[in-house]
Amino acid sequence: MTQRLDQQMAFLTEADKLKSVLRATTLADGSRRENSGEHSWHLALYALVLADQAPAGVDINRVIKMLLLHDLVEIDVGDVPLHSQNGLAHGSHDIQAAESAAANRIFGILPSDLADDLRSTWEEFERAETADAIFAKSLDRVQPVLQNLACGGGSWIEYNVTYDQLEGRVGAKVARGAPRVWDWVAQRAKAWFINRKISQ
Amino acid sequence: MTQRLDQQMAFLTEADKLKSVLRATTLADGSRRENSGEHSWHLALYALVLADQAPAGVDINRVIKMLLLHDLVEIDVGDVPLHSQNGLAHGSHDIQAAESAAANRIFGILPSDLADDLRSTWEEFERAETADAIFAKSLDRVQPVLQNLACGGGSWIEYNVTYDQLEGRVGAKVARGAPRVWDWVAQRAKAWFINRKISQ
Repeated sequence: MTQRLDQQMAFLTEADKLKSVLRATTLADGSRRENSGEHSWHLALYALVLADQAPAGVDINRVIKMLLLHDLVEIDVGDVPLHSQNGLAHGSHDIQAAESAAANRIFGILPSDLADDLRSTWEEFERAETADAIFAKSLDRVQPVLQNLACGGGSWIEYNVTYDQLEGRVGAKVARGAPRVWDWVAQRAKAWFINRKISQ
Repeated sequence: MTQRLDQQMAFLTEADKLKSVLRATTLADGSRRENSGEHSWHLALYALVLADQAPAGVDINRVIKMLLLHDLVEIDVGDVPLHSQNGLAHGSHDIQAAESAAANRIFGILPSDLADDLRSTWEEFERAETADAIFAKSLDRVQPVLQNLACGGGSWIEYNVTYDQLEGRVGAKVARGAPRVWDWVAQRAKAWFINRKISQ
């Protein structure tokens, strides 16, 4: 039992490194970049608070579990901003292979039953085929939009994003899991992009 | 429905402020103070990974929910370090009253059904009477011990804490909810305090 606890504690201390992985998105007040640890907390809170937006059959506790785990591979790979390299870097084969190796290393710190459980939950999130994973992905995509709206543009300005690009890279995935949430957000995002055009 | 979503989104943006509340504890590498948002994520991960340490009857999903919410009142009140003012500030009447007012304001941003649900969950955590809340509290108390062990002392040095004080302020509460976890941690903490005495 002690060896099991050794492994659990070693994993929890390793996970602490996620607090030092910085994302493209900032805090809502624009004061600094968000890290992937606090981002994961914020997403789990999104799931709690927006549970009534999940389609029937979604298990919100599994969604929360996915969101708590989903970025741990970034300890080795770093965050790959969605809008970087004109939107092409995020899902590339190289990044996926690196993330898979990271998952082997990081979840492999745990006792094998827990490692298998958490790794398969992470893979389910990545594949985005089940109802739980599709809803979890929609929250992961929509939170940065809210952060950018709150701070006045954020990573949209940095990566010179257009509304059509936002619709394609973000809107489609949010709408797939949480259509009414995307309707709410799209109205506000459209207004931001129109105002930016007028002021340029 | 739009008004409901307005309230949910306003709450989620307000919650972002927890990422700017700093704690006495540092990251495991000692590089900076931990904030209460990333701390809440870390605790939810503790619950996932240490679920097998919970007494029978504990609902780990409710524990995770409590841990995601437990520090939101700090947006208004700030973090009150456990070892500050010789351990007396943390549970004081003034702090409890301020936290209760903060809970009214912050959870009150939500639609009333959600506000009632999240506020009563937060109160259950604070009272620490149910099995779920007792286990959640034990994780909240043990994580800073792991952080201090990882970074070489951290807030124990800052507040000049003795092993007996740690045992009283922390150990009793961890042991109440997760006795084997405390046994594991106490061995390592004792060794740290003994080594510190020798080197002084």
